[in-house]
Amino acid sequence: MSTTDEQFLADFATMSGFGATPGGGVDRQAGTPEDHATRAWFSQWLARHGYTETVDEAGNQFGTVELVPGAPYVLVGSHLDSQPLAGRYDGAYGVLAAAHAGARVAAEARAGTLQTAYNLAVVNWFNEEGSRFKPSMMGSGVFTGKLRLEDALATTDPAGTTVAQALANGHAAPDGNAPVLAQVARYAEIHIEQGRNLEESGTQVGIVDRTWAASKYRVTVDGAQSHTGATRMEDRRDALFGAALVITAARELAAEFEPGLLHTSVSELYVLPNSPVTIARQVLMNLDLRSPDESVLGLAMERLEKRIIDAQADSRTEIRLDLTHNWEVVSYQPEGAALGRASADSLGYSHADVMTVAGHDSTNMKDVVPTVMLFVPSVEGISHNEAEFTHDDDALRGVELLTEVTRRLVRGELEED
Amino acid sequence: MSTTDEQFLADFATMSGFGATPGGGVDRQAGTPEDHATRAWFSQWLARHGYTETVDEAGNQFGTVELVPGAPYVLVGSHLDSQPLAGRYDGAYGVLAAAHAGARVAAEARAGTLQTAYNLAVVNWFNEEGSRFKPSMMGSGVFTGKLRLEDALATTDPAGTTVAQALANGHAAPDGNAPVLAQVARYAEIHIEQGRNLEESGTQVGIVDRTWAASKYRVTVDGAQSHTGATRMEDRRDALFGAALVITAARELAAEFEPGLLHTSVSELYVLPNSPVTIARQVLMNLDLRSPDESVLGLAMERLEKRIIDAQADSRTEIRLDLTHNWEVVSYQPEGAALGRASADSLGYSHADVMTVAGHDSTNMKDVVPTVMLFVPSVEGISHNEAEFTHDDDALRGVELLTEVTRRLVRGELEED
Repeated sequence: MSTTDEQFLADFATMSGFGATPGGGVDRQAGTPEDHATRAWFSQWLARHGYTETVDEAGNQFGTVELVPGAPYVLVGSHLDSQPLAGRYDGAYGVLAAAHAGARVAAEARAGTLQTAYNLAVVNWFNEEGSRFKPSMMGSGVFTGKLRLEDALATTDPAGTTVAQALANGHAAPDGNAPVLAQVARYAEIHIEQGRNLEESGTQVGIVDRTWAASKYRVTVDGAQSHTGATRMEDRRDALFGAALVITAARELAAEFEPGLLHTSVSELYVLPNSPVTIARQVLMNLDLRSPDESVLGLAMERLEKRIIDAQADSRTEIRLDLTHNWEVVSYQPEGAALGRASADSLGYSHADVMTVAGHDSTNMKDVVPTVMLFVPSVEGISHNEAEFTHDDDALRGVELLTEVTRRLVRGELEED
Repeated sequence: MSTTDEQFLADFATMSGFGATPGGGVDRQAGTPEDHATRAWFSQWLARHGYTETVDEAGNQFGTVELVPGAPYVLVGSHLDSQPLAGRYDGAYGVLAAAHAGARVAAEARAGTLQTAYNLAVVNWFNEEGSRFKPSMMGSGVFTGKLRLEDALATTDPAGTTVAQALANGHAAPDGNAPVLAQVARYAEIHIEQGRNLEESGTQVGIVDRTWAASKYRVTVDGAQSHTGATRMEDRRDALFGAALVITAARELAAEFEPGLLHTSVSELYVLPNSPVTIARQVLMNLDLRSPDESVLGLAMERLEKRIIDAQADSRTEIRLDLTHNWEVVSYQPEGAALGRASADSLGYSHADVMTVAGHDSTNMKDVVPTVMLFVPSVEGISHNEAEFTHDDDALRGVELLTEVTRRLVRGELEED
């Protein structure tokens, strides 16, 4: 193993100690002391490796390297925050890979072995996960102008703490020097697949060419409070029973399609008043439908709406679905994917085009600048779980690939194609 | 309408202003400022009507009247605390009715028109509802020796506040003068029915002769965290889906029996981690089964266990049921019910024997002293809901009936039968 590989694995192990959990994962939700500690470590790492650290108003943490005075940036990164009881790889792997890749490319530029068309910056986007503060992909959302800074800063967690307060309490203050969107020419990101396609096909790296379509809803089930013991079954208007019917209907719906054509989930649920002796008057929950084919989503919702009419009648509740997010199948730029494939070929890595089901900061970035999104295999596709794992060999191949992609972007190869 | 009737309704209206909600109900969970305010008002009421107020270590609030120095007490009461967004009648009606009944009986004793065998006390039991601090019927549970005082005081609400802290913060301190179990000879309580039997049969008052059987469980559904979008349906171990299957199975189970033979409820549910992008690793919830026939409960649980085996397989989760409460059908003392009937007859009220599905403080008291439990009609049986309502005529008949029952108990009629 090379010294640089050893150093990457050692850095990854050190980083994984921040917010470490007994089950071998991490818990460092956005703006918590664990997130702050990880960022503080990363800040020192950047300084030791020739980067200039800078932070923007949305809490995005950058490390810049000047290679061509006044030129736009090639930006490479991901996020250091995590879900509660999450794995060590999701996001954090991509930030460290970006930092190592950038340092190698910068060294080549300084040594004169690489021609440079752009400056280089790495980024740790604030709050990609969205578990504590909604929505997810917050930092990149503000950066790309999809989310207003004031709205992001005013967002509260369930305890009432705002993003502004969480950032002020332990975070480096914004310094006015951070890159802005207009200064960014290219974006690249690497992430674990969070799926099993690469593992099952024995492919070494993935080139992300498209995103799955997704529809997300806020579901409100309105019933009526009554006594759990004394109320006759036929008199009940039980919001939790209505919610259970929606949950099972969504699951059965997925089974009506070929495997892999429709993913449905309900994962967040609030009961009012949530008492052991009072039937629920209201349940609020999410509903998440995803498909690699938009027409499947449309058909699925048609069928689900019929089931919901039945669920309302069976539970004597009123069930309302409000659409909160809607993404069609969106392509990453073909020239970015082509650059990813060419980079993998030049390294002799087997590769496949893959779609991403999960959202990433690159989902925001690809809408505004040419973007290269890369995957490495993820054992059994386990993610948002302490057991999330990627073999060292795969992780190191990913760093090599991201380095090659960054190298090509910095020297302006995308323009030459 | 008599002056005493007008005064009762006026007092009831005043009392209903504490913790009043926009929907016409009250929210005064145990130990909250709203509960304290109601108790403070009741304390003044007791003083104005010749009672001596005294408070015990468990937060039970008493008003005593000495009629026969050294004699045991006839105790009459209910509870002033409420569920969140509850009705005005549940508990509070019974406390005020007891206070009015006791004052009338004491006046007769002082005037020499009533022979007395016992002293008289009214009680507001602490935390009957159990929504903020579990278990329910806490104050009467400690009083009757079913629950240890230390355990009750150490119980915490979801915010971590203990009962001891809630009592100390706004409550009259215990004074060492409160009645103890050994000094109580008889107990009586009146409550709204929280059911529709009296209303549907056009009966004016109910004499409670038995309690429904009940089995309550803590349900734990263990799955595995994973990404809501990316995880294949067949790879999921979704604890919330497992929970939804249990909720629907419990509901379907009730429909397999004749109406009124089995009530099943799930009303309190916690999801971990409760994130919009992470499939639930664990769900905790209650399961409540009630029946007027113990053998139905046994048969129902046999059937439910088979359904749970299927639910585990379908959701790839592990589902565990832990029994937390188990009551058989229990009779109130026949001589107490007979005294209730005789009292109703003497007032010319139509009456019927009814079972209680809900637990009451009298459920605890009947196990240790002869107890008379009375119901008044409850419109549509609506309870634990702001729309809970009992007509004034029915409420006033209840006060008359409780007065007659108290009168008979104080003069020792139960011994004569």
